[in-house]
This record gives sequence, C-alpha cells and structure tokens, in this order.
Amino acid sequence: MKIILDAMGGDNAPAEIVKGAVLAAGQEGMEFVLLGREREILAAVEEEHMGALPANITILNTEDVVTMEDDPLRVVKDRKDSSMVRGLEMLRDGQGDAFISAGSTGALMTAATLIVRRIKGIRRAAIAIEFPTATNGTTLIVDCGANAECTAEYLTQFAHMGSCYMHAIRGVADPRVGLLNIGEEETKGTSLQKETYALLKEAREKEGLNFTGNLEARDALAGYVDVIVTDGYSGNILLKSTEGVAGYMTTLLKDVFMKNMRTKLSYLVLKDGLREFKKKLDYTEFGGSPILGLAAPVIKAHGSSNAKAICSAIRQAKLFVEGDVVAKITDSLGRESGT
Amino acid sequence: MKIILDAMGGDNAPAEIVKGAVLAAGQEGMEFVLLGREREILAAVEEEHMGALPANITILNTEDVVTMEDDPLRVVKDRKDSSMVRGLEMLRDGQGDAFISAGSTGALMTAATLIVRRIKGIRRAAIAIEFPTATNGTTLIVDCGANAECTAEYLTQFAHMGSCYMHAIRGVADPRVGLLNIGEEETKGTSLQKETYALLKEAREKEGLNFTGNLEARDALAGYVDVIVTDGYSGNILLKSTEGVAGYMTTLLKDVFMKNMRTKLSYLVLKDGLREFKKKLDYTEFGGSPILGLAAPVIKAHGSSNAKAICSAIRQAKLFVEGDVVAKITDSLGRESGT
Repeated sequence: MKIILDAMGGDNAPAEIVKGAVLAAGQEGMEFVLLGREREILAAVEEEHMGALPANITILNTEDVVTMEDDPLRVVKDRKDSSMVRGLEMLRDGQGDAFISAGSTGALMTAATLIVRRIKGIRRAAIAIEFPTATNGTTLIVDCGANAECTAEYLTQFAHMGSCYMHAIRGVADPRVGLLNIGEEETKGTSLQKETYALLKEAREKEGLNFTGNLEARDALAGYVDVIVTDGYSGNILLKSTEGVAGYMTTLLKDVFMKNMRTKLSYLVLKDGLREFKKKLDYTEFGGSPILGLAAPVIKAHGSSNAKAICSAIRQAKLFVEGDVVAKITDSLGRESGT
Repeated sequence: MKIILDAMGGDNAPAEIVKGAVLAAGQEGMEFVLLGREREILAAVEEEHMGALPANITILNTEDVVTMEDDPLRVVKDRKDSSMVRGLEMLRDGQGDAFISAGSTGALMTAATLIVRRIKGIRRAAIAIEFPTATNGTTLIVDCGANAECTAEYLTQFAHMGSCYMHAIRGVADPRVGLLNIGEEETKGTSLQKETYALLKEAREKEGLNFTGNLEARDALAGYVDVIVTDGYSGNILLKSTEGVAGYMTTLLKDVFMKNMRTKLSYLVLKDGLREFKKKLDYTEFGGSPILGLAAPVIKAHGSSNAKAICSAIRQAKLFVEGDVVAKITDSLGRESGT
C-alpha cells in the first residue's frame, strides 16, 4: 500500500510530517511518498537527526505550497505545482492508495472534490470526525463543517457514508445512526431535520440503515450511536463547543490544583489518571478526519499535528483502504437508488 | 414589587417552589403570589415543617395543572384554570410585576406569547440563558431553543434584546454582541448568518449596537462577548453540548479519583476547589432563563429547580423589573426603525 503525504501542510511541516512517516515506516508492505520542497524536507531530516530515510519513503519535489490565506476556489488553478494539488493528482491517477494533508481544510476539500472527484451519485463530500465516547468507543460526526448548507438528501447520504465507514474501520456490525436534533420527537428541529428524519426512516425500512432516531447534543458523547448525522454548520458548532468546554474545564481544573502546597502534592498522586483523562478528550488521538464521498481515500490531518498524530492518520488511511470504504459507499448508493 | 409564582411547575413542585419563595420573602418590599392547588401547597408547607407562611406570601387556588405531556398549542384553551395560564393572565392584567414558572418550556413560551403578548414590533420572543465564562463573568445566549427556524431580522432583534438585558441586569456598560458562527470571516456560515452579519453591521453603524463580529462555538465560554446571538436550533446545540461535555468530564474525573486509596485521599484535599469548579459550570446557579421580547417579565426556571434555584430566579425577576428591561427593549426598537 502506498500513502501519499503532503509534507508541506500544517503548522509543523515539514519536520513532523516526515517524522510521522518515519514512525510508520516499519509496518510491513507500506510505502510512502512525501511531496514538498525536497531541500526543506532534507534540511528537517538533518536538523532532527533522523539519519537516512528508510527505503520505503521517497521524496517527490514540488516547489509550490498551499497556504492558509489561499482562496480554496483558486488553489487548483493557481497552485498547480503545490504538494497538495500534485498529491491529489497522483491519487486520482492511481499512483498511490490514499492522500493525507494537514493543510487548509477548505483548500483540501475543494481541490480534492475537483481533482479526485466525488463518487458518482454522491451530492456532497463531507468531513467526518471520530469522537471518544463515555462507553470507551467512538462516534463519527458527519458533517463537521464542509457543507454549511445542506438538504435532507445530503444528510441521508452522510448517514450511509458514516455507516459504511464505521463498519469498515471500527468493525461495528450494524452502526447505529442518530440525527442531531434539539429533541427526541420526530417533529423537532427545522424543516431540514424533519425532512431528513422522514428520509432516514425510509432508509431504515427499505435499505436496513440502523437509524435510531434523533439525538440531542447533550448525548453526543454518551455512546448511544456510532454515527451522528448533521449539517456542517451544526456539526461544527457541536465540535467546537465540545473543544471549548473541554479547554475551559481543563483550565478551571488547573486552578483547583494550584491553590496551595497540599493541592499541588495531590496533583502528583493523580497525574497518571489525569493524563488518561486528557487523552480521552483529545479527538486528535484518533487520527485525522476522513473526507467521505470522494472516489479515493483522502484524510485531513489536524493543522497542529505532530509526528504521533500523523502516524495515527496513516494508520487510519490504511484502514480506510483495507476496509474498502469507497467501494462500500458506492454499493450503498446502489441500494439506495434501488438499482 | 409582586412576583407571581407557578407553584405547580417543575419536577419538585410545589414543595421547592414554596421553599424558594420563603427563602426570598425576607427581602424588603417584596410580595409573592403562589398559584396552584392550595391543599397541596399547604400539605407541602406542613410536611417540610415550614411553619406559617410569611405574611407577604399569599396563595391563590387554581385547580388545573399544565403537564409536560400537554400540547403547548392547546394549553391556553384546555388548561384555563391552570396555575400557568392564570398566572400569565394576572401578569397581563397588572396584578403582578413578573411571572416565574418551572413548568414545560414549550407551554410557557406559547401561553406567554398568547396571553402576555410580544412587545409591538418584536417578531419572536426568545429564551435566553446566562452562562458562566472563563473571565468570571457571564454571557447571554439568545435564542436557546424557542425558535428553531429564524430570519436575519429575528436575530437582529435578539441582539438588541440581549444587549438591553445585559446592560440592565448585569450593569454591562456597552454589551459586546457576537454572532455564533463557524468562522470569523464575514462570509462564513449559511445564508442566515451572512444576512444577519450584514444587518448587525448596519445596527452597529446606525444604532450603536456593540457588534463585535462572528464568534466561534469554541470561544462561547471565553468571555469575549456579553451576548451570543443565534437561531434557536444552533443555540440549543451549543447549550446542550456544553452540558453534555461538562457531565462527561465530571464522570471521567470521578474515575480518576476512585482509582485507589491514595487518589481517594487526594479528593479530600481538593474537595473545596472541586465544589467551586462544579459551581462555575452550573448555569442554573444564575437563576432561570428570561423570555425576552414579551410585554412583561417572564422567567422560565429550570425544570429540576430546587428552592435555591427558585430563589435565584426570583432575584433575577427582581432585576428584570427594576432594570426596566421591557421598556428598554421597546426603546431600542424605536431606534431600530428610526422613529
């Protein structure tokens, strides 16, 4: 399996991207292509004392770089020789099995849609994020911000895509799908949620989708469902508020420990447990965010990814490929349209 | 000042409602009317050994009760002799200065709108919730779920209403108003957010509204703004996910302490700090949720309110009346339409 890596994307490029590839390079049957400015990549290898790169990691020089300031709509046209655009072209042309980038989300979504294209019949590609749950599992939120404005048809496709993904990647036999809403009753929410509810119910009856009904934001991390379907606007609110509260609580907690000498000492006793606690809240532990609905596997790694996070994203890309998620989504679409 | 209390609303009615009134009854110049089944109220007084009720608390017998199962749209017609409907009628008729209920939110919103009515020119009444922030202040979220579907005009009115409220109640000189969105740029969000952004910018230029731009959900508790404007659907997602994460983290934290004898001992050291910590996250500490945009002050107390929470809601109702919020919202509307 060959993974194409955008070595120039994210806050810690290229050093952490390269290190992430090196960390993953020991796995059997894996190959990596690092796209980016060769001299910068080699300088990072030198600086970080990585020694010679393993034989299964190659570098492909690309001179241009997509920045956070680039207009996503112009990237494909204006940044033809960028690591992102060239990497997506390699993926499209079958010169690799998956593409990973920690660069601009907007640029990656747009460029991937234009170059790799969507699976035929899929209306919109979506960004999915796996979140840890109280039951020690994970739940996948689709969409997390790629499509602010959605129709009930998009959301129904997100449900199928998320279900295929969790089945293939996490081995969930019959993924439970919940619709994010402001109440449990069928009549809750805006017209979008009401229409989507009706379509998902139909998908449950006709296509066996394991739709379990509405899910309130309060229960998003409770582990009641494996997939949470939502428009990108609300999904992003859910994601970011979770991030915000977790950060706020961590700060408050620090104050509790810093109060006096005795409280500081108790921190030492609790240190290991608190580390575990923090880890459980860190969704970046689960790798990057898969972009679902494209004709080939693309993973958006977090912008602040370090080597470990890149390594997680690589593991995730491997599962994405091995699980044959793209084919499964294509199949589900066939079922959906009754062909 | 006379506060009208729905003694039959909420999970702990009537006992905790009555106790809340008794707690607040010591304040000078305050009177309370408890509406509900007199014999049940008196039985609660007896059972809880409250002794004789203070002279400034009177009971008005109403036989019917609005339940959580009632269709909000039928309450005014079907529950004419309920504590909720009768209380709202008293408020409308000037037989009290504010009304507080811990009963069904939907029923209260609908009945209050039909009986008390909206301020002339206000398109929709909204439920606002005050949240603690990292800067030890609070931020008001409007709307938190009363109006799932909104227009840019509604949201602009929510901004004015929230600003008036925080000015009058919390003494914030020039409340900063942020629009909940999925990015900072003016072009982010759905068409609703884009249109609202334009209207709020206009309100800033023409009416001096202190609109500070978009606010991401991640920063909702950061204390950057005093008012967060949002449609009821997204506001509810923000509110409930905050609640959900806080609950989840509290559970995780409990595990950290329960690990072994040493960690259990350290809990004792940290107990006071942790209590403070929990308090800071509990938005019910700040009283109930004001319903903004009505022609008289109505407060929705949390369904699970205990006596202390009812007492907070009474304090809040007092500020609502003293701050002359209704008149201020009416004035702001005059400015808005340029009259």
